[in-house]
Amino acid sequence: MRSFAPLLSIKSLLMNGTEILGYAAGAITSLTFLPQVVKTWKERSAKDVSLLMFIIAAVNEVMWIGYGTLRSDWVIIATNAVVLIMSLTMIFLKLRFNK
Amino acid sequence: MRSFAPLLSIKSLLMNGTEILGYAAGAITSLTFLPQVVKTWKERSAKDVSLLMFIIAAVNEVMWIGYGTLRSDWVIIATNAVVLIMSLTMIFLKLRFNK
Repeated sequence: MRSFAPLLSIKSLLMNGTEILGYAAGAITSLTFLPQVVKTWKERSAKDVSLLMFIIAAVNEVMWIGYGTLRSDWVIIATNAVVLIMSLTMIFLKLRFNK
Repeated sequence: MRSFAPLLSIKSLLMNGTEILGYAAGAITSLTFLPQVVKTWKERSAKDVSLLMFIIAAVNEVMWIGYGTLRSDWVIIATNAVVLIMSLTMIFLKLRFNK
């Protein structure tokens, strides 16, 4: 019943807003590489795409998944698992269509 | 003096390790787009690069900076500010060298 106190309500609303913004940002992060995967798959050309970028991203996602596991933070684990799959897909596509 | 208790020491070491992993992961995240910026700048060609990917990334960084601001988390703010600058640079390079 504490949440009926006006100040706590505002604080609670603001915290919920922050959490929602965090989840929304995480959801969009997980989709960032998707347009590149689709474009490269369609055009079968990846000459201009940086292989190093996706290798760094893949290693980095493994680090984030480790961090998420140590903190038992499933949002971080899930978000970075999706980005890891996208990064590995792009590494595969880059090696296949590097012309 | 509590940290001299063996179990708390191990817990504290593990927490420090987790924090260090988080900072290291954040530092690498901020550099992810750098190889693509350098490659595109050198080769003056960005035909195969997805514009949509970097537009999504830029909007997403603004969301993360908002989230970091609301949580007063300077690691999130700084990391995403660097990635925002890289994303805007890639949008500029893509529009300039889209051939």
